[in-house]
Amino acid sequence: ISRRLANLKPTVFTKFSVLALEHNAINLGQGFPNFDGPEYIKEAAIEAINTVGKNQYARGHGIPALNASIAERFNKETGLTVDPEAEVTVTSGCSEAIAATMIGLINSGDEVILFSPFYDSYEATLAMVDAKIKSVTLRPPDFAVPVEELKSAFSSNTRAILVNTPHNPTGKIFSRTELELIASLCKEHDALAISDEVYDKLVFEGEHISIASLEGMFERTITLNSLGKTFSLTGWKIGWAIAPPHLTWGIRQAHSYITFAVATPLQWATVAALKSPDSYYEELVEEYSARKEILIEGLKDVGFEVYEPKGTYFVMADHTPFGFKDDTEFCEYLVKEVGVAAIPPSCFYSNPDDGKHLVRFAFCKDVETIKEAMGRLKAKL
Amino acid sequence: ISRRLANLKPTVFTKFSVLALEHNAINLGQGFPNFDGPEYIKEAAIEAINTVGKNQYARGHGIPALNASIAERFNKETGLTVDPEAEVTVTSGCSEAIAATMIGLINSGDEVILFSPFYDSYEATLAMVDAKIKSVTLRPPDFAVPVEELKSAFSSNTRAILVNTPHNPTGKIFSRTELELIASLCKEHDALAISDEVYDKLVFEGEHISIASLEGMFERTITLNSLGKTFSLTGWKIGWAIAPPHLTWGIRQAHSYITFAVATPLQWATVAALKSPDSYYEELVEEYSARKEILIEGLKDVGFEVYEPKGTYFVMADHTPFGFKDDTEFCEYLVKEVGVAAIPPSCFYSNPDDGKHLVRFAFCKDVETIKEAMGRLKAKL
Ligand SMILES: CSCCC(=O)C(=O)O
Ligand SMILES: CSCCC(=O)C(=O)O
Repeated sequence: ISRRLANLKPTVFTKFSVLALEHNAINLGQGFPNFDGPEYIKEAAIEAINTVGKNQYARGHGIPALNASIAERFNKETGLTVDPEAEVTVTSGCSEAIAATMIGLINSGDEVILFSPFYDSYEATLAMVDAKIKSVTLRPPDFAVPVEELKSAFSSNTRAILVNTPHNPTGKIFSRTELELIASLCKEHDALAISDEVYDKLVFEGEHISIASLEGMFERTITLNSLGKTFSLTGWKIGWAIAPPHLTWGIRQAHSYITFAVATPLQWATVAALKSPDSYYEELVEEYSARKEILIEGLKDVGFEVYEPKGTYFVMADHTPFGFKDDTEFCEYLVKEVGVAAIPPSCFYSNPDDGKHLVRFAFCKDVETIKEAMGRLKAKL
Repeated sequence: ISRRLANLKPTVFTKFSVLALEHNAINLGQGFPNFDGPEYIKEAAIEAINTVGKNQYARGHGIPALNASIAERFNKETGLTVDPEAEVTVTSGCSEAIAATMIGLINSGDEVILFSPFYDSYEATLAMVDAKIKSVTLRPPDFAVPVEELKSAFSSNTRAILVNTPHNPTGKIFSRTELELIASLCKEHDALAISDEVYDKLVFEGEHISIASLEGMFERTITLNSLGKTFSLTGWKIGWAIAPPHLTWGIRQAHSYITFAVATPLQWATVAALKSPDSYYEELVEEYSARKEILIEGLKDVGFEVYEPKGTYFVMADHTPFGFKDDTEFCEYLVKEVGVAAIPPSCFYSNPDDGKHLVRFAFCKDVETIKEAMGRLKAKL
């Protein structure tokens, strides 16, 4: 293994999804639904597969129809006027958008600010490019941005700050005030904002704001999103990056040599997905609200302290009452003895101790499954 | 753009595919067919899409059934006993397998030997990891490996040699003698062999040999392959890397943070593809032989010197008789004035001058289309 990756652990998601299968546990770990997205999206994929010409290499940065749909939705939401041809790049899921952003735009030795806890691929892709991570920790109960800490994390070496809103794993939504602060620090230090917004349609309380929409920010922001979470098709791996042309150039150069292009028929299906009426998004939130309530009530009932999320389909809870050494020990017990898989979040923290007492549950499962999981917790914890 | 990518040109394939569309030219440039692979593969994809559970995140390194099918076919062909669980990684096309291999296994400053001309992503992914390229040039008419040059390219800093057989763009197939020489140099210098074999089923003359099957080589070889070329579904982006566990570890770590996982329903379809009977591969070669003959006859008829390929679906030809300054000027004339897109191969050479007099045509098009293209050349050259 190369030196740059030598210190990385294997991704926690795989570990616990494999354990869940082995122990026949209900998987509230890795964030994928046990139901699929709308039929019309699947039908669009099938139609493309059945059309000669829609199964060969797509244009590297996306089929024109998809670039157009992505720009159109984003422009409608933000009031911006993104150019689909010059400012949108389709990638193999948001994961590849993250990797292409880092490889295409971040130099060795650059400093990048992350909010801890953070999704593990941020750290790994920054390791790929030998960048330095500066971490600012969000703490329970409300995971607010610590203003002074954030200010002192910026320096003349800061190349970028990564913002993930709604935030995995905490469910936090960055407030307008917090985003304004980040924006002004970016402008002051001539830094980029990398904004991972894959949960932007899963908002239960408050408002999702794209940092690109704040004054003077579009020109320094890379906005990342994907099909998977919003349309319950996580396995299709369609993502995208929106950025001004000078940044898109770096992202596209990296993308064109990492994967070159993205599965053509699934791109056609994503065009259909992005035509979904507003009612689709409204129902999505309603359904997820109901699932969230069941999970939260179940966890509280068993004795967890629960940090109610404002967005995403994850909940963080404190497992201290159950007397385990740390989150890994707790989650291994859960998956093996209780039959419920969850994610130990300490690996998302720059200082793992900050997450030792926490556990992350996903509620992207149908109501019956979540109830069954709560029943298992109640019986065995 | 990051420093590591600053010197890379945009991929030539996109440039000429876009020009082909703009000028309504027949696209004999980028290597994708104008027909699709077998119906049973498409049906398997559709069945997976219609199955709840086959549209969510796949296991990071591949769905177990696909890892098993890949190992089974490779073992049958090579006599090796590859372990599907520990030695196979499914990627987003061979492109991602190349990127994951470089990022996962090559260190900054390592030397990697490439045979020039080479597929552009090799150079680009080596730039991503800041490795040094040592280039050994294959020259017409037969593109034989220059033995002394190759020997002197190896040094104590050599981390790997990349072999692409059958070879894009020349159509060369590395002979057993050449591969044995490469193998012995790898062993002598403790170097890895990275073997890109995506055209292994497109062999017209001679025999395809996997370098991993040579004595003592499996433990130091990464074998890359894909669905796209063999099954005429280049847009599905399913590839894989086969390597011993200690190398697979690096590849998987890189892969799991570059794309995490690969489109699940298309993986299921690839399982069906790999069950194809031998007759599928025989017919494939027959059909491509016929297309090749038509292209070669057409090119000769117009006055090109043609280097007949032993494998792949590409032909290199010398355009000197037509009096253009270089390959780019010639290909721009072709696409704009003649209505035929081809690829100027100088960008595949470490010394572009070596390829200036050449042009690459693809024959992965139906017979009518190739004939029509030859008609255009005849009329306008
Ligand atoms: C690519 S792993 C899944 C990411 C996510 O959904 C999670 O945090 O569980
Ligand atoms: C990913 S571009 C296509 C690679 C290939 O088929 C070619 O060399 O044309």
